[in-house]
Amino acid sequence: MSANTFGTHFRLTSFGESHGIALGAVIDGCPAGVLWNHDLLLADLERRRPGQNAVVSQRAEQDTPEVMSGVFENKTLGTPIAVIVRNHDAKSNDYDKIKNQPRAGHADDVWKQKFGHADHRGGGRSSGRETVSRVIGGSVAKMLIHATNPALKIYGFANQIGEFLLTTTERESFFSKVQNADDYSARFPAARHLEVFEALKKAQKEGDSWGGQAEIVVKGVPPGLGQPVFHKLKADLAAAMMSVGATSGFEIGAGTEAISQRGTEFHAQSAQAQADQYGGLRGGITTGEDLILRVSFKPTSSILDVAKRGRHDPCIVPRAIPVLEAMVAMVIADHILWSRLDRA
Amino acid sequence: MSANTFGTHFRLTSFGESHGIALGAVIDGCPAGVLWNHDLLLADLERRRPGQNAVVSQRAEQDTPEVMSGVFENKTLGTPIAVIVRNHDAKSNDYDKIKNQPRAGHADDVWKQKFGHADHRGGGRSSGRETVSRVIGGSVAKMLIHATNPALKIYGFANQIGEFLLTTTERESFFSKVQNADDYSARFPAARHLEVFEALKKAQKEGDSWGGQAEIVVKGVPPGLGQPVFHKLKADLAAAMMSVGATSGFEIGAGTEAISQRGTEFHAQSAQAQADQYGGLRGGITTGEDLILRVSFKPTSSILDVAKRGRHDPCIVPRAIPVLEAMVAMVIADHILWSRLDRA
Amino acid sequence: MSANTFGTHFRLTSFGESHGIALGAVIDGCPAGVLWNHDLLLADLERRRPGQNAVVSQRAEQDTPEVMSGVFENKTLGTPIAVIVRNHDAKSNDYDKIKNQPRAGHADDVWKQKFGHADHRGGGRSSGRETVSRVIGGSVAKMLIHATNPALKIYGFANQIGEFLLTTTERESFFSKVQNADDYSARFPAARHLEVFEALKKAQKEGDSWGGQAEIVVKGVPPGLGQPVFHKLKADLAAAMMSVGATSGFEIGAGTEAISQRGTEFHAQSAQAQADQYGGLRGGITTGEDLILRVSFKPTSSILDVAKRGRHDPCIVPRAIPVLEAMVAMVIADHILWSRLDRA
Amino acid sequence: MSANTFGTHFRLTSFGESHGIALGAVIDGCPAGVLWNHDLLLADLERRRPGQNAVVSQRAEQDTPEVMSGVFENKTLGTPIAVIVRNHDAKSNDYDKIKNQPRAGHADDVWKQKFGHADHRGGGRSSGRETVSRVIGGSVAKMLIHATNPALKIYGFANQIGEFLLTTTERESFFSKVQNADDYSARFPAARHLEVFEALKKAQKEGDSWGGQAEIVVKGVPPGLGQPVFHKLKADLAAAMMSVGATSGFEIGAGTEAISQRGTEFHAQSAQAQADQYGGLRGGITTGEDLILRVSFKPTSSILDVAKRGRHDPCIVPRAIPVLEAMVAMVIADHILWSRLDRA
Repeated sequence: MSANTFGTHFRLTSFGESHGIALGAVIDGCPAGVLWNHDLLLADLERRRPGQNAVVSQRAEQDTPEVMSGVFENKTLGTPIAVIVRNHDAKSNDYDKIKNQPRAGHADDVWKQKFGHADHRGGGRSSGRETVSRVIGGSVAKMLIHATNPALKIYGFANQIGEFLLTTTERESFFSKVQNADDYSARFPAARHLEVFEALKKAQKEGDSWGGQAEIVVKGVPPGLGQPVFHKLKADLAAAMMSVGATSGFEIGAGTEAISQRGTEFHAQSAQAQADQYGGLRGGITTGEDLILRVSFKPTSSILDVAKRGRHDPCIVPRAIPVLEAMVAMVIADHILWSRLDRA
Repeated sequence: MSANTFGTHFRLTSFGESHGIALGAVIDGCPAGVLWNHDLLLADLERRRPGQNAVVSQRAEQDTPEVMSGVFENKTLGTPIAVIVRNHDAKSNDYDKIKNQPRAGHADDVWKQKFGHADHRGGGRSSGRETVSRVIGGSVAKMLIHATNPALKIYGFANQIGEFLLTTTERESFFSKVQNADDYSARFPAARHLEVFEALKKAQKEGDSWGGQAEIVVKGVPPGLGQPVFHKLKADLAAAMMSVGATSGFEIGAGTEAISQRGTEFHAQSAQAQADQYGGLRGGITTGEDLILRVSFKPTSSILDVAKRGRHDPCIVPRAIPVLEAMVAMVIADHILWSRLDRA
Repeated sequence: MSANTFGTHFRLTSFGESHGIALGAVIDGCPAGVLWNHDLLLADLERRRPGQNAVVSQRAEQDTPEVMSGVFENKTLGTPIAVIVRNHDAKSNDYDKIKNQPRAGHADDVWKQKFGHADHRGGGRSSGRETVSRVIGGSVAKMLIHATNPALKIYGFANQIGEFLLTTTERESFFSKVQNADDYSARFPAARHLEVFEALKKAQKEGDSWGGQAEIVVKGVPPGLGQPVFHKLKADLAAAMMSVGATSGFEIGAGTEAISQRGTEFHAQSAQAQADQYGGLRGGITTGEDLILRVSFKPTSSILDVAKRGRHDPCIVPRAIPVLEAMVAMVIADHILWSRLDRA
Repeated sequence: MSANTFGTHFRLTSFGESHGIALGAVIDGCPAGVLWNHDLLLADLERRRPGQNAVVSQRAEQDTPEVMSGVFENKTLGTPIAVIVRNHDAKSNDYDKIKNQPRAGHADDVWKQKFGHADHRGGGRSSGRETVSRVIGGSVAKMLIHATNPALKIYGFANQIGEFLLTTTERESFFSKVQNADDYSARFPAARHLEVFEALKKAQKEGDSWGGQAEIVVKGVPPGLGQPVFHKLKADLAAAMMSVGATSGFEIGAGTEAISQRGTEFHAQSAQAQADQYGGLRGGITTGEDLILRVSFKPTSSILDVAKRGRHDPCIVPRAIPVLEAMVAMVIADHILWSRLDRA
């Protein structure tokens, strides 16, 4: 049941195997009358695509979305919006070699054990390619958010790439003017981003990979998003983030740093510092302050992958960022709708 | 919709306000024929209860569960299991003072803003008392797990209480023989637990509070739990953990430590070390290895709470552990049922 | 999963066995700020109760609802509303006799076969007593409807009791002034209702039972309720009605009479007649015209029931009406909320 | 939420507008390892297709399904099965005429009012073309049923076409040997089927239309399908049937005939007659006896439709039968899976 559906009111159903005919997304629950922004969809898919620069996996897909339903005369109909993206450059020959040889660190073996029958080509649905569906869902979510809360903006960037950690000064500088992490190599928004890029290229050549951490900041969030108890916004965000492959941790606000904090120190801080520590939530519900969350990633296991040798991602974080942003957008769109049911 | 229901197949619906008539749980989806273990339910509720020792909040509730339905001749009927626990020691007079004065750091103000009408007494459903329902759900989940996977055991303990961090040696010693964290003050399973206890008592006296981190290890997990894509076990566990109040982070396996790891180092480790780093999952699905997760908590905000002054929890971790264990038990029970639908 | 939950946004979770401790209802999804009408709840439970007159089953329950949560200062909180009704007059001794002797026409045997373990006392959850939970859910739904659509009114009445069929004149007379079917014996709203009553009493004495048909008319329905495709209002109403015990058929508007109609005849009718034939829907969505539906019932099988001999319902229709009204109220409340999500 | 998803465990998500790019179905919850029967899918789509004979609507679609995901090496993967069917013969010019002129009896006007923005071409999703998705879902359901309960067979046929009512003798003759209603004109399984055919052709020419009734009989049903209370099999079947366009009534077993029955007469019948009256259920759960249900249809409103003049269906029943069978197959597949969760 619903293993491939995400969300309560704004719902994405994802389908497609990495080396099958197509990936696809059905969004059910997007209200009627939302302006369709096809350029945004194209841009978001392009941002997710590998092969954009030297340090992400080189598989050159052409991710051309085809909108099958739900949009008419450039507006949503309130009916399910189905979008497919066909697979082209599958290179399944690469994968035939490993048919009976599960890839180390991959889900192939557990999947086979669980279902008895599995698609050995490129990971099937445990592949990163599945995130195409999520990005489509996220684009539609952003179109809805644009219609209802135009001031809301989602900023994703790399907070840490291996040993390179964004400093407070670098973060402040990034947020001091309207910026886009896409303008920086590896989406690491600091002057030294080319240094990070070179280090990643070196790691890739050496057959190594790095862990890292992505951060998402949402500005212009309306207060009152999130539902008490099991659908606190942080719970839905955590599920969204941890449903992405290779993730190992989720933090909201102060996150793991809160572990060694004292209450008295905490409450002696400035209001802004307190808000950041809380991450924009109280009791799991948005306050209108910035929503701040971070997602940790393991070093990619594809370094051991015969099929991917030489073209693996040395660090998954840069490429994961558009996917995380998409998931955050869907959670927010879901709760914007949900909040319409709060009061009689 | 379903804001107060948790789970897909094994489903807990939670109800009740902190200072209302009762807290309650309805478990729908527990199969017929599970042996009812009332002693387990009583023990689990007792473990959650404040007032067990000097360093948890002193509100002396008598949490007597009344099973209203779903159990007959000491076995589950396959019908909804409803259990209520009446509220006794509510001291709502304490709360009348703060009727128009939202408690700092609490959800009272956002709740009021969201719903227009709120229960100001003790936080209503944003109170820690709501966890009574979760513990009931967890007990029933354990009864089901006992029927289907009797070897499975859930171990919760404090990994960090403020500045006190459990060492590798202390963790190994704890797991070297069958042990219960409940035998240690503050559920910190180390010889120096009384030292932690004294430090907590001092913090409480000084009106201070600490952050901390709980860890849950599950042994004897069957392989194949979790569903690909949106219901990876780590996604459902993250949602479960982050739905608990005062949480600020979730980690699986290596967690945030994975950020600065390198793939080559990682794969040079022993098989056991790798398993622990993965946290018992591959592709979000259990491998049969130990499931390892950690949850970070903020310092409790009740230090500023007029109503609770002098009887607040100096650190939420010890008391949260039974709740986290309950949530983990429900996620596992849910996926044990779900896995019955994997194959034709 | 959710076998005992009804509704998508306005959700009732029902629990309790006929001869267990209590019946109960948890309503999740009722918005905050709805005025609590306890008198309505008491009146609705009283209307459902057997023993009101000579021709319904004589079990004299005292159905006193206890509101456990979700209501504060006489308004709903937006949190789950839990209400329980304790069982008193259970006479389970009557049922001990039949422990190993399934009651003819009852669900006891299939239930036992399905679940392996069953509650033989009075049918457990397949008993008519389970409808207490539905009536509670319906009362809360009516409170919400009163807050959002005060002009909406639900009229249930007997359209047929055995061979007694309400004539067009009788129906028109009933609707010509504001009336209540409760003012008529057997809820058969015609001058000859005492004749029906006597006939039913005679059937009861003779150990016989009758089939019949209930009709529900809803006036003041807002247009636009129902969702295209799988949640057409008629689909949700049909599920609601057919989830009630002893039902054998559901009709909307012209119903089974439509079978032998011709399109040309149909469209030659007056607008009002056409509206009635459509039953207030087009494409499964309300038009604002009267919603008209009918539910058929089998003759009660309890005539063969040792435990109930002499106090069985000779016809289930009169007693089922408040339950059907409650189910209709919940479907409407659900779709009133749902329609808030139609447009951006 | 989920307005376009049907089922609890075996779930169909339907998408596509009548005159859009394509219709589609995503089936989530079909277990892994089910043999893919593409011929069955082609045959089922062909059976649904208009233009098969003189008396169904003449739009000549080529319904070629493309399986996008979920099937590998001729078996299901346990991942979502997505199938699309492109629209060809849309003749949307016909519909441009009626852009601002809602078609009488159609949902166009209520849809427009509800969503503000609607697809005026051929009814969008309120068109009969949407049933393509249902037929795809039904085919997959049958593949699953074939894997788990190969003896189960679903028989759909016309019980009544306007004034032509199938006699008991005709029904018995039909069931006396393995037969297929498709071998009869208008799926009216009687020797006089050509007479019915001629009458329908005449009605079509005269611009008239007829109501009618379809019947579905399922043989070889396992006992124990259905869940007590809200998901009684009859409730889920009723929702399934009444979600189909132009339906006006649903009956199980004796249906509306039960209204005027007496309990004593009923129980004096033979066991077989009683089973048929109950329709194969007790307490909403299958007994293993034949499942018997009927669905009533209004005369088609397209007689008034400018765009369809001359090529409308004179009676919807023959064409609806494959759709009803598909819906029944999905309900059964859903409950076959669900019953795996009944016992510990």
